[in-house]
Amino acid sequence: MSKARELKHTTRLRARYKETDQMGVVYYANYFVWFEVARTEFFRDIAYPYSRIEKEQGLRLMVVAADCSYKMPAHYDDIVDIECIVSGTGNASITFKYNVLRGSDLLACGETVHVFTDFSGRPKKIPADIKEALK
Amino acid sequence: MSKARELKHTTRLRARYKETDQMGVVYYANYFVWFEVARTEFFRDIAYPYSRIEKEQGLRLMVVAADCSYKMPAHYDDIVDIECIVSGTGNASITFKYNVLRGSDLLACGETVHVFTDFSGRPKKIPADIKEALK
Amino acid sequence: MSKARELKHTTRLRARYKETDQMGVVYYANYFVWFEVARTEFFRDIAYPYSRIEKEQGLRLMVVAADCSYKMPAHYDDIVDIECIVSGTGNASITFKYNVLRGSDLLACGETVHVFTDFSGRPKKIPADIKEALK
Amino acid sequence: MSKARELKHTTRLRARYKETDQMGVVYYANYFVWFEVARTEFFRDIAYPYSRIEKEQGLRLMVVAADCSYKMPAHYDDIVDIECIVSGTGNASITFKYNVLRGSDLLACGETVHVFTDFSGRPKKIPADIKEALK
Repeated sequence: MSKARELKHTTRLRARYKETDQMGVVYYANYFVWFEVARTEFFRDIAYPYSRIEKEQGLRLMVVAADCSYKMPAHYDDIVDIECIVSGTGNASITFKYNVLRGSDLLACGETVHVFTDFSGRPKKIPADIKEALK
Repeated sequence: MSKARELKHTTRLRARYKETDQMGVVYYANYFVWFEVARTEFFRDIAYPYSRIEKEQGLRLMVVAADCSYKMPAHYDDIVDIECIVSGTGNASITFKYNVLRGSDLLACGETVHVFTDFSGRPKKIPADIKEALK
Repeated sequence: MSKARELKHTTRLRARYKETDQMGVVYYANYFVWFEVARTEFFRDIAYPYSRIEKEQGLRLMVVAADCSYKMPAHYDDIVDIECIVSGTGNASITFKYNVLRGSDLLACGETVHVFTDFSGRPKKIPADIKEALK
Repeated sequence: MSKARELKHTTRLRARYKETDQMGVVYYANYFVWFEVARTEFFRDIAYPYSRIEKEQGLRLMVVAADCSYKMPAHYDDIVDIECIVSGTGNASITFKYNVLRGSDLLACGETVHVFTDFSGRPKKIPADIKEALK
């Protein structure tokens, strides 16, 4: 990993009413939606919008594992920052770590592991230019 | 419309925790999800599972309009019955009405209007056998 | 309605992967979620954040009716603008209209009707200061 | 753990159109929603409906960790069985394991860890009768 460029991107969003449940906090599965929003913005940031990876390269980023640890609840209308960090890459795989922050409070952290596949689900090597951008 | 067969199907489901919001009731957009579940079961009931309409006939049921009136809130774990009734068909279009009931209480009612299209979005006549089944 | 201030607010957001379905477009119920995001930003814009209306005034904005007409599909990663316009107010009720735009293309338009209630669901007059702000 | 009663419950459901994404498979965060549906049915099965735990005992089951491994994708209209198994209990905590099956195919497996809390979020011992039922 190059020192010149940190493989990290932070996305800011607001908790939606829809994302709360009757506990009055953001429903636990929605953190994985926030991770996805942060991944999308990460790829845009390194100049490989995920929409282009799908459309132009015919590749998909299949999820093979996902986890989240919940420290403090997020509430409706909270502004949260989702840090998305590349924590590892393999031939066909990529691992992201996430931190969900409200100001300096860490609300949750998690990880997702993905494999690049073609549209029929066969694993594919990470394209050279994306691999380059991830360095 | 044949008297022998009423074009109505009732689907029973339970309100999920996920479907509530911090008001402690089912979030309003989720009624449209319930309508979709009821439509799916309606098509299965007339022997044209929607999954087959997409896969085998290459057709889609695009939504062009949807509305819902909310009478009483649904709560977590409520058992609700969704009545789905064909209220009209055109050359390429079909209109459904819905009633959401908890026991004999009417919680909500709504309507969705759909057009059959091919995968590129062009309107298509309702296939003859589906039209027949809808009679 | 004062000429000096138009009761309209526009919120920009991006379609999430989560919001698509296997048709490759944004699932119809999610437009109502976007309407909610736009309402939240509308209230913030007139200086009455909805989170404060709930917390400080003990009021809720119950939905009694909602509809949407779909003109063109929204896709993953599209930037959309949601216009939220107050189209009517009663003693306890408020009606919003919405336009969903991608650039100059109108993707959808809709309406929601709400009643202010207390936490037990009883209708309440719109608080004087909110009524004032809505003028 | 008593031999007479296995602390496992299986819930059957159908994948909803809403739950798919433009990859044509069930979106990854929705497996956590299915886990929640399975937990709800697990508690009903041991005669402690979660709705009663909240309402009558003033307790909540806060999630502190969740993970899922994805083996094969689920598709729209698939019938899936969600096995929910108690894999551990502490003073205030409970751990569930899940298997998502389509017929004999294992689609995904996961785990959630929860802490019983009161409505202000303070951890509370598992009530004696629930502890008894979990034996």
